[in-house]
Amino acid sequence: MNRDRFSINQMTVKQLPLPELVAHCVRLGVRGIGLWREPVLAYGVEAAAALVRDAGLTVTTLCRGGFFTAGPTTAATLDDNRAAIDEAAALGTDTLVLVSGGLAPGSRDLPAARALIAEAIAALAPYAGERGVRLAIEPLHPMYAADRCAVSTLDQALEIAERFPAEQVGVVVDTYHVWWDDRAPAAVARAGAEGRLHSFQLADWTTPLPAGVLNGRGQLGDGAIDLAAWCELAAAAGYTGPVEVELFNDELWARDGVEVLEETLKRFEAIVES
Amino acid sequence: MNRDRFSINQMTVKQLPLPELVAHCVRLGVRGIGLWREPVLAYGVEAAAALVRDAGLTVTTLCRGGFFTAGPTTAATLDDNRAAIDEAAALGTDTLVLVSGGLAPGSRDLPAARALIAEAIAALAPYAGERGVRLAIEPLHPMYAADRCAVSTLDQALEIAERFPAEQVGVVVDTYHVWWDDRAPAAVARAGAEGRLHSFQLADWTTPLPAGVLNGRGQLGDGAIDLAAWCELAAAAGYTGPVEVELFNDELWARDGVEVLEETLKRFEAIVES
Repeated sequence: MNRDRFSINQMTVKQLPLPELVAHCVRLGVRGIGLWREPVLAYGVEAAAALVRDAGLTVTTLCRGGFFTAGPTTAATLDDNRAAIDEAAALGTDTLVLVSGGLAPGSRDLPAARALIAEAIAALAPYAGERGVRLAIEPLHPMYAADRCAVSTLDQALEIAERFPAEQVGVVVDTYHVWWDDRAPAAVARAGAEGRLHSFQLADWTTPLPAGVLNGRGQLGDGAIDLAAWCELAAAAGYTGPVEVELFNDELWARDGVEVLEETLKRFEAIVES
Repeated sequence: MNRDRFSINQMTVKQLPLPELVAHCVRLGVRGIGLWREPVLAYGVEAAAALVRDAGLTVTTLCRGGFFTAGPTTAATLDDNRAAIDEAAALGTDTLVLVSGGLAPGSRDLPAARALIAEAIAALAPYAGERGVRLAIEPLHPMYAADRCAVSTLDQALEIAERFPAEQVGVVVDTYHVWWDDRAPAAVARAGAEGRLHSFQLADWTTPLPAGVLNGRGQLGDGAIDLAAWCELAAAAGYTGPVEVELFNDELWARDGVEVLEETLKRFEAIVES
């Protein structure tokens, strides 16, 4: 791997307005950018698409569809996810990241939540495929199983994805979510062999975790994860795509966004060139 | 299961001095108590042993040995764990809970941490067996993998335990740590069949998690876990031992300890009689 594979997820430097982020990507030679629906909608989908396209950037993913477990799969949930697929297509990215949702309200049944997730994906996959967008199921760390994502391991994500063609449904491997799992390396290889490794993302694991455990994703190199080893795993699985860095971190957000962008790129280079 | 299986872990009501806790257990018909080394040492091991014995209580577990990963297995680590085994024997409990330790200092190598854990257990298991104490490896939730316990799943705990005789080394199943894991039910059955299910503990999963994620273990019934189903799993695995309730929770600790003890027993009864 080399620095050309680097993609900056917009949330890592959410303090930067999109035009500023794009301009600094161009200046730094960053070629990829991961976008989020809310800031893109605020800026305007067509305007965002033109901005990144004119700058020569690739939109590596759009985050996020999902949240399928609020109840029985509803027309509103599917409509919202079809809108996300349309936005992904308009932005020119081939990958929509899914954060699938936790337990249904009042439920303690994780398998039932996973069944709701699979049902919604079945309803969406052909629509996505027709628009050249791949749905990428992101397993989230088990500490989010109750309230954000009942898909906690890469094996579980693959078990759902494998019900569909690989050009419609695959997985996201984010080191923050799977680094602890001794079964994940084999699952990365399986995802790669099946052509389902649709996105590979880096974040480090730092402790202590903050209250709510959402905004403590560590800067690359600051934490417990052997990120170079994970990059090698992805490469050995045949992954040649962008490597996105997605950090949610109150301390990083409080700093100058350009400084954080430059630091993140340097940390990435240190890992992939080690 | 019925209320006779209930055991209160001392930490759940750590605001109660040991004699007061013991007296209220007797008053409420609670037969089991789980103890921790630090308060027991402060009270005196022999005095604590006499207090619970004279009250007719069973010490269901002693918590905790472990923390094997601070570096190469040292004499000091082994000495401290042998002392814990001696204290368990003196208290009349057959089970010493192990919290095994996270990554070694400066290391990002989880398999190496697990190897250190297995190495230390190999050095301790015969000593424990000779004293009638079983070492019980507790898999901790993956959110503790870096800093508290590199053994994150029941499968991993069993893979280590199975290297030793079951009367020397087994596992703890604590719902808080394993509830999210779709492979855990099969592992509970495997542990039971092997005679390695040395302790079964209940705590609920409530969100949002507090900063540091240590003291947010939920009161039974307040959270996301189907505790009745887990009790059935343990029973189906042949487990007939005590069911210990171990909660670390700042809100519970701020309340009257007797009230919390009575509430916990009532919540337990509601689960096992449902």
